[in-house]
Amino acid sequence: MNTLKAADLALTMGKDEYRTAMKPMDLKLGVLQRALHDAGIPTAILLEGWEGSRKGEVLARLVQPLDPRGFEVHAIGPPQFEESLYPPMRRFWIRLPEQGKIAIFDRSWYRQVLEEGFQGFESDFTEGYERIRVLERQLADGGVLLIKIFLHISREEQSRRFKKWSKDPAFAWRVGDSERRQHEHYDDFHTAMEHMLAETDAPHAPWQVIPAEHGRYARWKVVDAVATAFEAALEQRPHSKSSPGYKPCKQSPLDKADLSLAVERKAYNDELTPLQETLHRLQHLCYLKRLPVVMVYEGWDAAGKGGNIRRLVREMDPRGYKVIGVGAPVGQEITNHYLWRFWRWLPRAGHLHIFDRSWYGRVLVERVEGFATEEEWHRAYREINEFEAQLTQFGAVVLKFWVHISKEEQLARFEARQEDLHKQWKITDEDWRNREKWDDYWAATSDMLALTSTEHAPWDIIEGNDKLHARLKALRIAVERIGDALERR
Amino acid sequence: MNTLKAADLALTMGKDEYRTAMKPMDLKLGVLQRALHDAGIPTAILLEGWEGSRKGEVLARLVQPLDPRGFEVHAIGPPQFEESLYPPMRRFWIRLPEQGKIAIFDRSWYRQVLEEGFQGFESDFTEGYERIRVLERQLADGGVLLIKIFLHISREEQSRRFKKWSKDPAFAWRVGDSERRQHEHYDDFHTAMEHMLAETDAPHAPWQVIPAEHGRYARWKVVDAVATAFEAALEQRPHSKSSPGYKPCKQSPLDKADLSLAVERKAYNDELTPLQETLHRLQHLCYLKRLPVVMVYEGWDAAGKGGNIRRLVREMDPRGYKVIGVGAPVGQEITNHYLWRFWRWLPRAGHLHIFDRSWYGRVLVERVEGFATEEEWHRAYREINEFEAQLTQFGAVVLKFWVHISKEEQLARFEARQEDLHKQWKITDEDWRNREKWDDYWAATSDMLALTSTEHAPWDIIEGNDKLHARLKALRIAVERIGDALERR
Repeated sequence: MNTLKAADLALTMGKDEYRTAMKPMDLKLGVLQRALHDAGIPTAILLEGWEGSRKGEVLARLVQPLDPRGFEVHAIGPPQFEESLYPPMRRFWIRLPEQGKIAIFDRSWYRQVLEEGFQGFESDFTEGYERIRVLERQLADGGVLLIKIFLHISREEQSRRFKKWSKDPAFAWRVGDSERRQHEHYDDFHTAMEHMLAETDAPHAPWQVIPAEHGRYARWKVVDAVATAFEAALEQRPHSKSSPGYKPCKQSPLDKADLSLAVERKAYNDELTPLQETLHRLQHLCYLKRLPVVMVYEGWDAAGKGGNIRRLVREMDPRGYKVIGVGAPVGQEITNHYLWRFWRWLPRAGHLHIFDRSWYGRVLVERVEGFATEEEWHRAYREINEFEAQLTQFGAVVLKFWVHISKEEQLARFEARQEDLHKQWKITDEDWRNREKWDDYWAATSDMLALTSTEHAPWDIIEGNDKLHARLKALRIAVERIGDALERR
Repeated sequence: MNTLKAADLALTMGKDEYRTAMKPMDLKLGVLQRALHDAGIPTAILLEGWEGSRKGEVLARLVQPLDPRGFEVHAIGPPQFEESLYPPMRRFWIRLPEQGKIAIFDRSWYRQVLEEGFQGFESDFTEGYERIRVLERQLADGGVLLIKIFLHISREEQSRRFKKWSKDPAFAWRVGDSERRQHEHYDDFHTAMEHMLAETDAPHAPWQVIPAEHGRYARWKVVDAVATAFEAALEQRPHSKSSPGYKPCKQSPLDKADLSLAVERKAYNDELTPLQETLHRLQHLCYLKRLPVVMVYEGWDAAGKGGNIRRLVREMDPRGYKVIGVGAPVGQEITNHYLWRFWRWLPRAGHLHIFDRSWYGRVLVERVEGFATEEEWHRAYREINEFEAQLTQFGAVVLKFWVHISKEEQLARFEARQEDLHKQWKITDEDWRNREKWDDYWAATSDMLALTSTEHAPWDIIEGNDKLHARLKALRIAVERIGDALERR
């Protein structure tokens, strides 16, 4: 059942019937939880519903038989100040379940859209649903089991419950302004909720509307719905996923790069410090105007990313920027969605984060080395574009640099590093192995540049055979784009 | 130098001298950082000083040669609302560096004490210093290198800088109310700062006052002080630590436990539900009055902790409690101080967290199995008492249950588990190995109960041969103590 209209609110359940049905269920849920854990399936259970639909009691019954080490309950309120400094979906992403775990959301990403929707902000309404559809598709494609439950009660029942609670000092706080507001506008909310259910019902993330006028019936139906979804997930794996829609690029954007570009040391020295000082000033203005900046550095091994970054940040205040060196995922980074760690590492509004390697690892090293399946990296181009669109819609400046050198230049640098006592640690066998796969990386890079260069988050190729040119170019672009964004803000 | 009085503010440094001195320093700091990393030494650098002492510039110069993957800068402001819901030191604990990493605090745990101190809250002042001394001793004992720097400028220099910044729109925001207030009351602050330096200077955490009127001189002295401290830490390991002061207990508190205590099923059934419902009510009142509750369950294997906890939480709202199953530390839990993960897992004010095993692992399994050195577990009794004192000083209720069974009862339960298809997964070879060390665990438990039972956080022995008695007793204690605390609040 996925509409309010179709829900039969008269349904009840007798005490004995309830007890008989529930008894084997507790054992069953424990067994299923262990099976989901062993299968490494992450599960997100969303509990939505009317104010007064007794989500708390349903929740308490649901978790009774579960091993507490395997689930976590997230009560979602309005965004706190700290949370408002990030793109809206971040607070959900960082709470997503890792493999084998269950995250239970009491209210969820639907909270905001329902409240905004009701308040009549039509544009956010549409955008909000789209963000939710993107999130749920990405999660389902990533193997997350989504169970979405809506507890439905009538206006009369809501009224009865509010009155009862108001009389008890331990529970009176539950009935506040937003509860009263919903009750007054029950019919409008009803319309908004039906709309929400219709807009966000999908085969990979179906809604289940559960009549909740009668306590025992509601508790039983929720437990039963969860158990059924657990079983289906265990049987149907792997379930059907969205079509990746990948098309390789025809002409590599790298072909046009002019690696002969270079600057004289004197000109470099003259331009460098003023650019760095300008960026320092802009950093302060970003802080003042709460403009978040995300910078990505990708490039060949030994392309000079590290030195380039060091020049970029030289005059900046370390309290406002952070360089994030991205390596192979470890621990919880492996058992979560590949974008999870990047959502966590986003800058607060007003700060600047520089990613030394990034989420593009999915379509570079993971593609070339086979760490991601073909389906996974095919899908990643769209997922990454959607991710970055959420950053720029939030107002972030997104800069992406591919630091480019020729194969010959790389060889010369590898050899020089091996001879320099202080740089030997920077060159490893892995660098040599990567070099052997130059052509594969070339193809992957070409696809990446072509398929993820968008209007709001374009790639810039930084010609790096001459390091001085590369440093100035990166600085110039940063100063220009951040400056422009500040003027528009 | 560890007083303001002794600092010579006239010191300067010529451009050439600066350049000559700094040049080899960058290489040296890079080498030292790698050596600290390889030695697994965690470092906390505290940057304190007057408003206008240009901490940002000093910081920018200090981090220039460092590998950004190895350090993190934490700008410490006044506690945010979310942070105010936890004991005051938590926001620092969760930011402490793990082994081989550097955490740089721009303002630190001194911020609050200075500001409170100046505002004349004498009691917090003294308590605040004591909390700091405890923190720094615990960290130093745990192997953390502490570098504490204070940048000193005169009132006249502060005035000059504020005037200059106020003219530039990118920097004017730096001079706000608290800056102006400090300037107006420079002499009072001077007295408070000298006092702070005297109160918190220690061999394992020495203060370094650095004259900061002249930019180059200050930058050089800070870089030099950090490099010198790095070198000393690498040479002197292991450095001298505080005396553990451990005395084994003479009479085991377990001797007095009456394991024959039991209740009839009928009496159990009659009492259980009302107790659970009362606890549910109390939970709501805790939320209303923002009372945090910390519960610890320790006990023999198969003592029935899990089942006891399940009965305790049965009627409670899962949005307000959390059961934390504590296992062997993994990942960052290993490379951080052993108390670090428990500081992270503390409940927000108004919530209840139940630890199924806890920080007492330090003096139980880690002691018996030799995972902690003798010096470490000897020291742990005091460290744990200090930790819990910070919880109760913040107003938390701390309940600690030792669920006790006889050796014969344990054997009977192990055997029963092996025969039950649904419980076989609960019994492992490790349980049998632990059982062989019964006497060692008995000694460790006896010490624990005797040495960490304090007035504010006492241990309760829950006689567990009869599970029904154990469940009722735990519930009764929880209801009584939480109820009392609510009345006092």
